[in-house]
Amino acid sequence: MILINGQERDTIPVDDRGLAYGDGLFRTLVIRGGMPVAWRHHYRKLSHDCAVLGIACPEESVWMEDLIRLSRCEPACVVKITVTRGRGARGYAGPATAQPTRILSTGPIPAYPAGWLKDGVRLHLCRMRLGHQPGLAGVKHLNRLENVLARMEWRDPGTAEGLLLDQEGNVIEGTMSNVFALRAGVLYTPDLGRCGVAGVTRDRIMALAPELALPLQVRNFPLPFLLQAEEVFLCNSVIGVWQVREAGEKTWDRGGLTGTIRRLLDEKND
Amino acid sequence: MILINGQERDTIPVDDRGLAYGDGLFRTLVIRGGMPVAWRHHYRKLSHDCAVLGIACPEESVWMEDLIRLSRCEPACVVKITVTRGRGARGYAGPATAQPTRILSTGPIPAYPAGWLKDGVRLHLCRMRLGHQPGLAGVKHLNRLENVLARMEWRDPGTAEGLLLDQEGNVIEGTMSNVFALRAGVLYTPDLGRCGVAGVTRDRIMALAPELALPLQVRNFPLPFLLQAEEVFLCNSVIGVWQVREAGEKTWDRGGLTGTIRRLLDEKND
Repeated sequence: MILINGQERDTIPVDDRGLAYGDGLFRTLVIRGGMPVAWRHHYRKLSHDCAVLGIACPEESVWMEDLIRLSRCEPACVVKITVTRGRGARGYAGPATAQPTRILSTGPIPAYPAGWLKDGVRLHLCRMRLGHQPGLAGVKHLNRLENVLARMEWRDPGTAEGLLLDQEGNVIEGTMSNVFALRAGVLYTPDLGRCGVAGVTRDRIMALAPELALPLQVRNFPLPFLLQAEEVFLCNSVIGVWQVREAGEKTWDRGGLTGTIRRLLDEKND
Repeated sequence: MILINGQERDTIPVDDRGLAYGDGLFRTLVIRGGMPVAWRHHYRKLSHDCAVLGIACPEESVWMEDLIRLSRCEPACVVKITVTRGRGARGYAGPATAQPTRILSTGPIPAYPAGWLKDGVRLHLCRMRLGHQPGLAGVKHLNRLENVLARMEWRDPGTAEGLLLDQEGNVIEGTMSNVFALRAGVLYTPDLGRCGVAGVTRDRIMALAPELALPLQVRNFPLPFLLQAEEVFLCNSVIGVWQVREAGEKTWDRGGLTGTIRRLLDEKND
């Protein structure tokens, strides 16, 4: 099912700035049992990202109305939410009275190999290096060519995800996920102040650190630091949490933290 | 008039990757007297940019057929050409058999104030700094949020363009144009190997340098270097060439080179 500005349609005008310039942002979340999982986190992030781009974010009640319609038809699905600055004439200058375009489209919950959740995943080390743009860092905007080109680097269906470094060699994220590393009782996740997408599940995991009695460090670290970690895991709103079992020459045994975090996230689905 | 894959339509499916990820590129050119100006340059650039993104560029004859249809209806107009990777399911991995989407849409030739061509323009110095991404530099792709945010920095209709530096302070380009500077008989234009769009008119001007007996240097230079130039001008396929008369505190008298280059470009419209 697809809703565009509340209407069941499946096309947008070619002069939408989302197409013209990637002038918008998106979120991907799961509906389970007719309820959007972690919605308040997603809405907070949607509002934040809209504010960064200067797009007037539709009110929460408007999104909720759309989500209720979708979840009645498809009580278990993935929803992609896109908001663009709306239609505009040619040229970078936005229209004075832009009316944002609101798109929600559902798809099946992906059927990843069962072993990825249970045993962990193999990571490709991407050659693509992320560029620094502090003005857009963290935001899940529609300018995603870096991710697209990175994802084109491997076709092996046994490789679940690709790891992206920045141009200084710092670990940043997966092409579609955030990354955490456990080292000597400290939980590390990359600083996303210059590039990368600060995902909702990353935020939720950071919020769990105190109750796990894990000191949390958000900082730059290079690939060798990650490879020397005791446990590495990836997260996003669709996959949940996957432990990394293999990256380049490095392999890890099954650790205990990934499963604990997955359970805690499942318990706090608000 | 809008043609999408050769059909007169004005919408695209929401699952087009051009919208989802800015996964595509574009060009803007002028049709005059029923002929697309500098078409062979635009087609060469279109093919090059498609190759960088791994998109199968439709053949020249396909574009020509579209352009002939448009130019019969509108013998004097601006044409925006967009090509995307085509439709695809959710996720960064492109479909195995992507069918590129080809969009051509016409608009009026913009009526800029007559003085901008005759006397020159005022330049805003953008706070937005371009990020480095060598894997995409030069390409006129659809990931243009930097340009959008930069263009949002000024609303004064008397300011024609904004100047963008990179994060190291090198002059790169205008939000919609390339930039040249004349200093002591040498023509300078920024190196676009790490960011910026290498426009067709920039290429055409670079090719004119020998017949103007002007040594050409493509290199990094900071803002003060530009401000100390004897003549600075901007170019793109729609505006042609505009001299810069004012940037920050700096003003320039009318120079001789801008007009000469404009005449030479007009003579070589192939």
